[in-house]
Amino acid sequence: MGFRFLPVATVASAMATWQGALRGRVGPVDAVEVGLAAALGRVLAFAVTAAEDVPGFDRSTVDGYAVRAADTFGASEALPAYFDVTGAVPMGAAAPRPLPVGAAAPIATGGMLPPGADAAVMAEYCELLPDGQLAVNRPAGPGENVISRGEDVRAGDAVLRAGHAVRPQDLGVLAAVGAGRVVVRRRPRVAILSTGDELVGVEARPGPGQVRDINAHALVGMVEQAGGEALPGGIVPDDPEQLARRAAAALAGADMLIISGGSSIGSRDYVGQAIDSLGEPGVLVHGIAMRPGKPTVLALADGRPVLGLPGHPASALVVFWLFGLPALAHLAGVPAGGGAPRVQPAVRARLVRNLASAPGREDYYRAALIWDEPAGEWRAEPVFGKSGLVSTLVRGDGLVRVPAEEDGLAAGEMVEVVLFGWR
Amino acid sequence: MGFRFLPVATVASAMATWQGALRGRVGPVDAVEVGLAAALGRVLAFAVTAAEDVPGFDRSTVDGYAVRAADTFGASEALPAYFDVTGAVPMGAAAPRPLPVGAAAPIATGGMLPPGADAAVMAEYCELLPDGQLAVNRPAGPGENVISRGEDVRAGDAVLRAGHAVRPQDLGVLAAVGAGRVVVRRRPRVAILSTGDELVGVEARPGPGQVRDINAHALVGMVEQAGGEALPGGIVPDDPEQLARRAAAALAGADMLIISGGSSIGSRDYVGQAIDSLGEPGVLVHGIAMRPGKPTVLALADGRPVLGLPGHPASALVVFWLFGLPALAHLAGVPAGGGAPRVQPAVRARLVRNLASAPGREDYYRAALIWDEPAGEWRAEPVFGKSGLVSTLVRGDGLVRVPAEEDGLAAGEMVEVVLFGWR
Repeated sequence: MGFRFLPVATVASAMATWQGALRGRVGPVDAVEVGLAAALGRVLAFAVTAAEDVPGFDRSTVDGYAVRAADTFGASEALPAYFDVTGAVPMGAAAPRPLPVGAAAPIATGGMLPPGADAAVMAEYCELLPDGQLAVNRPAGPGENVISRGEDVRAGDAVLRAGHAVRPQDLGVLAAVGAGRVVVRRRPRVAILSTGDELVGVEARPGPGQVRDINAHALVGMVEQAGGEALPGGIVPDDPEQLARRAAAALAGADMLIISGGSSIGSRDYVGQAIDSLGEPGVLVHGIAMRPGKPTVLALADGRPVLGLPGHPASALVVFWLFGLPALAHLAGVPAGGGAPRVQPAVRARLVRNLASAPGREDYYRAALIWDEPAGEWRAEPVFGKSGLVSTLVRGDGLVRVPAEEDGLAAGEMVEVVLFGWR
Repeated sequence: MGFRFLPVATVASAMATWQGALRGRVGPVDAVEVGLAAALGRVLAFAVTAAEDVPGFDRSTVDGYAVRAADTFGASEALPAYFDVTGAVPMGAAAPRPLPVGAAAPIATGGMLPPGADAAVMAEYCELLPDGQLAVNRPAGPGENVISRGEDVRAGDAVLRAGHAVRPQDLGVLAAVGAGRVVVRRRPRVAILSTGDELVGVEARPGPGQVRDINAHALVGMVEQAGGEALPGGIVPDDPEQLARRAAAALAGADMLIISGGSSIGSRDYVGQAIDSLGEPGVLVHGIAMRPGKPTVLALADGRPVLGLPGHPASALVVFWLFGLPALAHLAGVPAGGGAPRVQPAVRARLVRNLASAPGREDYYRAALIWDEPAGEWRAEPVFGKSGLVSTLVRGDGLVRVPAEEDGLAAGEMVEVVLFGWR
């Protein structure tokens, strides 16, 4: 399994290779049962089906009167239909008796229709007369203003599919069908290593030539935010043997491995070699025509995704966002989506500067969003600065993408600023 | 403190009233110190300043050679400048000795410039000759390809401001300046009550006329996703006295209270009365010209926000998203932003149906996002269905807003689908 030199790939071809490998060779992690509150953000391992009809009875959707629709036929303002008014329908219980012909029962939104009633009329179209009779001045069709039993969810219906990531509103639906416990994928475990002789930990005071490790902390955040469990593995010196050993050990307890850095001359090669030695099929992509992020390594090791990221923090994060997040989603059992792109939350903004790009290369510019009150729109201000600056990291609210087929974007254009690190 | 009847407000005026009250009368919750990993998504209580310069030394941004810029002046391909090559600069340590005049030291990206050097030349513009000399065929200006000491962050600089919600990339920056522990706001505690005689818990099997409580679970999810701590307070029957008592008890242990429902005829009034009795100044807004969400109550009780939400799940969630999330952000100490709107992550999509709206009323339609492969764009398919359906909740990926000043949106228009419940 010698390390193969691979040509630099376009973003599109690297993504196609990567998605194909994920689909073909990476299975989802195990499933665990959790309570409803713990299911938020987790991915359902199985479809959730309803055990009973929802609602379990014919239910009014308005405040008004339950009636037989036939009794209202022909009613108008000029010639209302008249009803005897029976006792009000109680909330949360069945009406004590069926609705007599020609009678109307006061009912609130959500109330259960009495037997015999098949429609509800809104209070606005009714008038209670001094003699106690009710005048209804509009006809109601059968089923009008009613959700009938099982109309919302029928017993046996799947309300949420396997592979769905649970949102707040889904918790409501799970509650509605009585799914107080659900089976979800456990959070994929992502081991994170940083390599570089110059790196020290956050607690250390850097000596001459030393800097604190940045990438590991930012990657922990991205992994956790995306629903993974980050396993920080520490700093590895620029030493091929140590790197190979530490990488294998880190991957042994994880579902996925990220190695960032390898800054010394020549280290990029042995990061690739170390990754290639971890398992089959090894390195799939080595070098991508994008900025930032060219020295990226994408690999699979016996069914586990492995990413070699650039050492520059901004580069490492953009590459992880582009290639690492889909791998994490795949491990969690989220289906690849049949060709649909990932939903990428973005804000429309007016670009304030020209952005250049070499044709054939995909560029990601970081941009700050500034509200332009007079214009009532967002402005996208590209964040420039020397490569490798830390301070520029915090100024970017999102990324502006210049596709490979374009040679830049012009100031004044409306662009999509894809939110980055937002939640 | 009698309950005042207030006219229905427009969304804009309700929001102005609400934001003004939050700014004027609601202070942020206490601060706590946490480790770096626990800071993700939390709001900084104080600005974080750097204790030292970053980097702590002049640092090369390229792989190549450290030189004195003056020694390269006038160098060209035709007439290169020649250098003696000294020992390579080690990573993570100072060079053992100063750079002699006329010498170049091999250096990797991130390496520390030796004393005497003030620029780096990229390896691409250098040639190592057979006699061991280095030919440099481009001049380098002083500081070229170098991040000088403190250029990124200067000791004493604020790298992140108070009120900033920590994103993954911010964890990297905090690590860079050695902020292994940071002071953040504790998560605001949000008590959640549901009211309605028809409601039962998720574990119960609904009897005739009963349905399971949906809103509490969905609201727990929205609160937790937004960084709050949800305190589910259970179900309260449609009884004014019990509601007032339970609401006061729930609020006593919380920073904010949400009451949803109150479905029986007339209960909307006593939900408002109960909220008004909780503290000063009481109800600020009662009724908003929006759909869904008209029967909304916004109040402050002695510095704590209180929201009365409609009983319909979709309505309750949209209103909480619109008015509850800003209150939660305010409690967490996020500054209101000087008039800039909240950043709302959205996806541009082509509307496939006309959406009607009454002028003067702000409408929020739920929409599903469907990828249109031939067109290479998203389609926004409005989710229709009877009011109060649970099943439609899961079909919406986002919301399409029809502003109060418009009377609808036309099929074929590109619209913003604001992502709802996404993370």
